[in-house]
Amino acid sequence: MALNVPELIRAKRQGQPLDPASLKEFIDGYVAGQVPDYQVAAFLMAVFFRGMTPEESAALTRSMVESGEQYRLEGIEGPKVDKHSTGGVGDKVSLVLVPLVASAHAIVPKVSGRGLGHTGGTLDKLSSIPGFRWELGREEFLNVLRKAGCAIIGQTDSFVPADKRLYALRDVTATVDSIPLICSSILSKKVAAGMESLVMDVKVGSGAFLEEDEEARALAAALVEVGAALGKKVSAVITQMGQPLGHAVGNALEMREALDVLRGEGPSDVRDVVLRIGGEMLLLAGLAEDAEAGRAELAKRLGDGSALEKFRQWVEAQGGDPRVADDPDMLEVSGETAVVEAREGGYIQSIATRDFGVAANLLGAGRAKLGDDVDLAVGLAVHRKVGDRVEKGDPLVTIYHRGGRSLKEAETILRGGIVAGPEKPPPLPLFPVTL
Amino acid sequence: MALNVPELIRAKRQGQPLDPASLKEFIDGYVAGQVPDYQVAAFLMAVFFRGMTPEESAALTRSMVESGEQYRLEGIEGPKVDKHSTGGVGDKVSLVLVPLVASAHAIVPKVSGRGLGHTGGTLDKLSSIPGFRWELGREEFLNVLRKAGCAIIGQTDSFVPADKRLYALRDVTATVDSIPLICSSILSKKVAAGMESLVMDVKVGSGAFLEEDEEARALAAALVEVGAALGKKVSAVITQMGQPLGHAVGNALEMREALDVLRGEGPSDVRDVVLRIGGEMLLLAGLAEDAEAGRAELAKRLGDGSALEKFRQWVEAQGGDPRVADDPDMLEVSGETAVVEAREGGYIQSIATRDFGVAANLLGAGRAKLGDDVDLAVGLAVHRKVGDRVEKGDPLVTIYHRGGRSLKEAETILRGGIVAGPEKPPPLPLFPVTL
Repeated sequence: MALNVPELIRAKRQGQPLDPASLKEFIDGYVAGQVPDYQVAAFLMAVFFRGMTPEESAALTRSMVESGEQYRLEGIEGPKVDKHSTGGVGDKVSLVLVPLVASAHAIVPKVSGRGLGHTGGTLDKLSSIPGFRWELGREEFLNVLRKAGCAIIGQTDSFVPADKRLYALRDVTATVDSIPLICSSILSKKVAAGMESLVMDVKVGSGAFLEEDEEARALAAALVEVGAALGKKVSAVITQMGQPLGHAVGNALEMREALDVLRGEGPSDVRDVVLRIGGEMLLLAGLAEDAEAGRAELAKRLGDGSALEKFRQWVEAQGGDPRVADDPDMLEVSGETAVVEAREGGYIQSIATRDFGVAANLLGAGRAKLGDDVDLAVGLAVHRKVGDRVEKGDPLVTIYHRGGRSLKEAETILRGGIVAGPEKPPPLPLFPVTL
Repeated sequence: MALNVPELIRAKRQGQPLDPASLKEFIDGYVAGQVPDYQVAAFLMAVFFRGMTPEESAALTRSMVESGEQYRLEGIEGPKVDKHSTGGVGDKVSLVLVPLVASAHAIVPKVSGRGLGHTGGTLDKLSSIPGFRWELGREEFLNVLRKAGCAIIGQTDSFVPADKRLYALRDVTATVDSIPLICSSILSKKVAAGMESLVMDVKVGSGAFLEEDEEARALAAALVEVGAALGKKVSAVITQMGQPLGHAVGNALEMREALDVLRGEGPSDVRDVVLRIGGEMLLLAGLAEDAEAGRAELAKRLGDGSALEKFRQWVEAQGGDPRVADDPDMLEVSGETAVVEAREGGYIQSIATRDFGVAANLLGAGRAKLGDDVDLAVGLAVHRKVGDRVEKGDPLVTIYHRGGRSLKEAETILRGGIVAGPEKPPPLPLFPVTL
């Protein structure tokens, strides 16, 4: 290899922008085992401190995309648009949006992750549908897209291997929370999956990866810029994660709630986030005059059954039983429940949202490390939101559980994590920051 | 291991000071193979950006000392004082100072390195003495100190292994030039060798590791501070490396020049640096009222033969032939010479000192990588200094060589690296920065 790796690290350390060819050689060398982890780790920490220009971040992203298989979708007609969330508690938006936007004639080619940490994973939620298969190769992925116009699949080993290796390394070297590295990680997977445009759902608040508005704004702006440098249309919406989205937290429970929304019902916050992001998706896809018109089109499709019909078609195309659309009881939920009640009257002041995600995981809904088993039937129904009035004894959270010590631990966390007080707190806006 | 390594890296990344126990666990884990290189690399880069307090740097140093064998010198009477140079071209100061200061009743327990990069190594220079052995274990080291009051030995594998591993990692991760890491690398070896006080010779200029006055001042100040945090007396002198020190560059040639100085002769710049640092050493060792008195004492010992007598005694104690002291021709120098002449008259404007070191290495005087052989008999005699008047055809540099292509390359470098011009340039002060 001609690349002088210490010189590349030094250049980044000194804040000099790196050229695309060097970055590509560096990433290729890493994936090929020629550049060792320790040099990449030093590089990542230098990036943490020095940042990257949008052009550098785009070049890094391209190198990562080229490290593995690309799902070229040229053979599939229609605008390819995707959405991506930075992750939250109760975030079932993709489960609704993917068929909904496909019902409006966009192609939605989604490659998703499994849940890790305190946030749930879309693939786990989909696994609650009997028969649903998301471990599909490229040909199957294309077939589903041709049949249904949308697909949600998992990552194969050959899908952006550079991202897998970099992410694992960032995780153990305290270099996860670097904006250019987050951008290239997210966008590399989207580009490799064939998207042409993307709407980012950047979550902010106590249950999100980013807790501060300014951080969320910076990440959203960077994603848009790097997307543009990649020649893709990327826009971003910053949404509230200061409390769980909707009521359901946990896999089958969230799938049920997503079906409520697809049926034109369900919690208004989930619906509003879906329509806001979906309107942007139709705009970027060239299927709506503006985001407002896109929202109206999608609201109509939630109301007239066409979203739910697309859901049936899609689920069937991925091997799932489409009857779940009309019989949510097919999504198995534990019959053992416990209720956390209000200890005193007042207004809900705050919800420790991340802790709620942790509590759901304790019950079995998520995994602490890759490879852990997930219990699809457990989770939470969060009955009250910040600002709601409660009386002593009112149910705050219903826990769907399997008994045992984890129930006690979850109860303790939940009881401490939802706080009532005498004053009505300021409302938590669903869209707290505009770009 | 109880230590959460990513959390430790994150804390350093965020600029939080680390506690000594965590640093020790981290270094112990690294040396034991429990903490992988990539986590240490990320840590080192975080230290590059965030620095360390003197207390952290001292704790890191202590952990490194404790990673290997320590040459405890309690059984040897007398104040233990050492000197250390950050490295330069033509730096033969240790060869003079070690016996000189020992002749004034200090114990000088020196563990030295071999040459690497553009600077020469003290051990290589000593190897030009017939019979001289520096690969000594602890017992032999103590015996030499008992006999002669001074010793210069090489590092064994068990000597500060943490430094060896960290240095090798820093070298390939662009984290060499971090002041706290330099401090802990230098001081760990000095402490492990048993020094109680230390005078640092921080070189500055075109032939030094640090080219800028401010960098040298910062390193010198940090070494003094970290030394104090370690409970050691450390002082620092910043000396000129904008041109080679003395005239000789190359192993046997430098050994010959050192003998000139030990004999009360030799180039005045070498002598002045020796006396300045030596005066400080006697002061720190409690053997002089002040540095000035120390200098006077040492000047006397250069003049009256007692320094040279100590040299003989020391060399004999390490297996060398003491007759070199009186017969410098025993230090073999190549008979093949070439002369670089002035192409025009004028004043010497500048000497590309690092390039002179590189040229000497090309001739065979140094090594590009550990394990390379060194030719002790080749090198340079630099006849002119910055500010000297020369006429066209005057000899500027004599090259002691073995012929071949390397001679041509060295000639080209040297010719381009010593520049004459019509104006007399400002002088290069021997002590350009005071602390």
